[in-house]
Amino acid sequence: MNKTILALFTVLLFFNCSTAQKVTGVNVIDKSDIKSAMIKALEWQEAHPIFAIAPTDWTEGAYYTGVVRAHKATKDMIYMAALKNQGYWNNWQTYKRLHHADDVAISYSYLYIDMNDGRRNFVDLEPTKKFLDAHLFDDDEWKKGTDKSEYGRTILWWWCDALFMAPPVLNLYAKHTKQPKYLDEMHKFYMQTYNQLYDKEEQLFARDMRFVWQGNDKDTKEPNGKKVFWSRGNGWVFAGLALILDDMPADYKHRPFYENLYKEMAEKILKLQPEDGLWRTSLLCPESYNHGEVSGSGFHTFALAWGINNGLLDKKYIPAVKKGWNALKACQHEDGRVGWVQNIGAFPEPASYDSYQNFGTGAFLMAGSEILKMQ
Amino acid sequence: MNKTILALFTVLLFFNCSTAQKVTGVNVIDKSDIKSAMIKALEWQEAHPIFAIAPTDWTEGAYYTGVVRAHKATKDMIYMAALKNQGYWNNWQTYKRLHHADDVAISYSYLYIDMNDGRRNFVDLEPTKKFLDAHLFDDDEWKKGTDKSEYGRTILWWWCDALFMAPPVLNLYAKHTKQPKYLDEMHKFYMQTYNQLYDKEEQLFARDMRFVWQGNDKDTKEPNGKKVFWSRGNGWVFAGLALILDDMPADYKHRPFYENLYKEMAEKILKLQPEDGLWRTSLLCPESYNHGEVSGSGFHTFALAWGINNGLLDKKYIPAVKKGWNALKACQHEDGRVGWVQNIGAFPEPASYDSYQNFGTGAFLMAGSEILKMQ
Amino acid sequence: MNKTILALFTVLLFFNCSTAQKVTGVNVIDKSDIKSAMIKALEWQEAHPIFAIAPTDWTEGAYYTGVVRAHKATKDMIYMAALKNQGYWNNWQTYKRLHHADDVAISYSYLYIDMNDGRRNFVDLEPTKKFLDAHLFDDDEWKKGTDKSEYGRTILWWWCDALFMAPPVLNLYAKHTKQPKYLDEMHKFYMQTYNQLYDKEEQLFARDMRFVWQGNDKDTKEPNGKKVFWSRGNGWVFAGLALILDDMPADYKHRPFYENLYKEMAEKILKLQPEDGLWRTSLLCPESYNHGEVSGSGFHTFALAWGINNGLLDKKYIPAVKKGWNALKACQHEDGRVGWVQNIGAFPEPASYDSYQNFGTGAFLMAGSEILKMQ
Repeated sequence: MNKTILALFTVLLFFNCSTAQKVTGVNVIDKSDIKSAMIKALEWQEAHPIFAIAPTDWTEGAYYTGVVRAHKATKDMIYMAALKNQGYWNNWQTYKRLHHADDVAISYSYLYIDMNDGRRNFVDLEPTKKFLDAHLFDDDEWKKGTDKSEYGRTILWWWCDALFMAPPVLNLYAKHTKQPKYLDEMHKFYMQTYNQLYDKEEQLFARDMRFVWQGNDKDTKEPNGKKVFWSRGNGWVFAGLALILDDMPADYKHRPFYENLYKEMAEKILKLQPEDGLWRTSLLCPESYNHGEVSGSGFHTFALAWGINNGLLDKKYIPAVKKGWNALKACQHEDGRVGWVQNIGAFPEPASYDSYQNFGTGAFLMAGSEILKMQ
Repeated sequence: MNKTILALFTVLLFFNCSTAQKVTGVNVIDKSDIKSAMIKALEWQEAHPIFAIAPTDWTEGAYYTGVVRAHKATKDMIYMAALKNQGYWNNWQTYKRLHHADDVAISYSYLYIDMNDGRRNFVDLEPTKKFLDAHLFDDDEWKKGTDKSEYGRTILWWWCDALFMAPPVLNLYAKHTKQPKYLDEMHKFYMQTYNQLYDKEEQLFARDMRFVWQGNDKDTKEPNGKKVFWSRGNGWVFAGLALILDDMPADYKHRPFYENLYKEMAEKILKLQPEDGLWRTSLLCPESYNHGEVSGSGFHTFALAWGINNGLLDKKYIPAVKKGWNALKACQHEDGRVGWVQNIGAFPEPASYDSYQNFGTGAFLMAGSEILKMQ
Repeated sequence: MNKTILALFTVLLFFNCSTAQKVTGVNVIDKSDIKSAMIKALEWQEAHPIFAIAPTDWTEGAYYTGVVRAHKATKDMIYMAALKNQGYWNNWQTYKRLHHADDVAISYSYLYIDMNDGRRNFVDLEPTKKFLDAHLFDDDEWKKGTDKSEYGRTILWWWCDALFMAPPVLNLYAKHTKQPKYLDEMHKFYMQTYNQLYDKEEQLFARDMRFVWQGNDKDTKEPNGKKVFWSRGNGWVFAGLALILDDMPADYKHRPFYENLYKEMAEKILKLQPEDGLWRTSLLCPESYNHGEVSGSGFHTFALAWGINNGLLDKKYIPAVKKGWNALKACQHEDGRVGWVQNIGAFPEPASYDSYQNFGTGAFLMAGSEILKMQ
């Protein structure tokens, strides 16, 4: 009799404690569960606005790119309401440095709203056009290589994050306004960055020239002697590639280049996935900060799932994606906060249970939205 | 003994599950329950901003009219805080189309704040005045009937929703500024709409001329052969009448017209109430989308309750109001969201468990606030 | 056996009811508990924006001063995110009356962000500088004593609340910009107010000249015949003194004056603390409204704790601070709202379970943040 009571008691306590984080099995994906995790993430983030310098900056740009993908996957009006609200209050502005790829990332959301809300003259794309034209066609120190700082700023997009910030916007703008020249320009500058930062042997991007080995004593090395490849930095490129391919014409002449690059990165990212599903901030030196980090992992999981859904990756990638999502979800707090996000930075640093950023929530939404589309 | 344990266990599980929606009995109205449902609705809506084209548009206008009524009924400062906050950030602007009744609905809230917050020079009523003067006295295509579209736009307020958007504002502006001419102008334009869209036989309003039968083959019919009368469309008129009468001078010469119209509609709306308390989107063809819809039902419930509270309707209406409120409350999610609201539209269409709109929340608040005043 | 079951049942019910308010023992201070109470207070307040006339007014100024102190004590980025967000949307403006101390209180937060966020050119301190220069050096009716109202407006800071609003900002501005003249000016005006409103016998401040006894029949008296000393009014001064001393140079020539005044007030405030830990709105006539009030009590608790932490008060003050905090926390609702805050006013009035104000939340955050630093 005592046993019966204790059993009931145990069941009941468990029932009461169901708010605690639970990691579900590797192979179980419940879509209504994903949807509610995504909505909770959105609601928490909307209630906790955060940015680096302005609500039009790249942190918001990346976040609302995640909201766009969530809306595209679910058509749930709660995402469109959030998108329209930020666009309205931001008055459809980019941030102000016209030479800086970061400052146009927010326009990905403006373009999507204009293409999908169906109300004429609601979105004002003039600030975006003005930015893109200045960005591509005006002279500046970065393009000319006359910047005196030490980051190797000899090209427009001299850091790998830039490949998430501007190229998907240029690609979508070319599609929406039917002006292929923006796509051609995108390709020109993309190749500069690829040539400068892509490590063909490692199939990964250096964050910037500080981390590209010159073969001398000054080369930056991880404690284990390897090159420094930042998880989020590569996540920016990898997720950016999925975004670009998603809207790039099937017959675009340079499309094979992007598909190949995507596949090479996918192959390497898969190999580097830790057993628990979450990538470490330093890809080749996971032991530096030996815990999963959510922004990079969210981007990797999104990009891998996109490749499966679009026929670029085969079935062997599926378990990695499921494992990634379940591990990401275990980083979400009960109130919706997406934790374990490395703070704003430019190379591997640790995260913590509480650390959040809007772009981390964006990565979470991107991953979830693509997994919802999986068979 | 086992039975005792199971009984306790059952009680306890029930206790734990108390968050599930519960429809309380038809005749039970618990006022503290209403108050907390209203506050939850407000909190959810404030945390999920949504609009069609701007935070000054008619959707926000209708929502904040609901917030006004909630404050008027409860004096709870949580409503006034929300009202002031939106007015401040909207900079007391109407939306921009001065010929369009929709775009001044938001001013109902501005007027109320000015009359009740007690701080001089806080509210700026200039944009409202500018709108109303242009709206009433400037020429435009709708007034002249030179609009080339097919909606029968030969009068200023050519669609029935307009009778909620502008007349209560004109009426309240006349009262607040002690300028009866605005009320007289309201009456002039109201009569145009009444004459064009009111169906005396059915005691309901057609949404616009597309739905007024001309006696030929082109007449729009429901599947069951009847006329199309939209629940929310009639809700706009019916609730608008209650708002107008609430602030119209008792001795205004045209008041009997509004009282009669109100009573005629009340009689018909009562007859059309389905057994479960919630009106269907198509009033004469409920079988089209056979589920309750919250925005129309909220407006009907509000208007009926207002009539009881103000001596225009007798006791036989009371059960309908109670039934309506309990059914509305069952459509509120646990987190406060008011679901089952038909999306923005112009004729009967279905809703769903999740579908929400700010004006649906407004209708919910209006209904609750008037029921709080019932004996 | 039945007893065992009932015991389990009781434990379980208690477990379920753990959401109810609980007053923990007087001497128990759990720091993680304080932190989560503070975050809940912030989250609730951010979701329920409220102000008197603008989001740059003194109510927001006092609230965000609390958020500053919470960030200073915890370094939790959730506070900095809220600070930056309001500063951005307020465009770093003060409110507009340059002669009115209230309207610069918000700049305390702007200064803190500029000193701690680390991004150059993010904060714009120009409006603050413009305000302070006009406030200190321009002529106006209050300074000249030509104001015709009856409040005794013959000095710049003619009401005691002003000593919270402007002096800490002037002090911090002097420190941040390394311009001692702002501190000297602060002292000049501070002395005027001290001379006019400080009651040396009672060691408390009159709110304004209406409450300073002239020794005739017109003197304002409490029902018990005593002088009117407002809890929140004295809280403004007392908490303001802690803020000032916190940033005032250790060798500033007038520092002893502020330390002495601080200690005198601390001595009296301690004596006046009711048994349950919360001060009544009327300090010398607690029986008028015999319930604790949170804004005044929060300021008193903050200021006392600051003195202990900074060596100005000895150990005998510790129990009062613990008692104060535990009583404050019992006024927080389950959803985070800080209740029992007297509405905006200028003398003792009652509060209620539901009554909240942003500055009450600010006082709560100030108290919590200082208690977190206690050993």
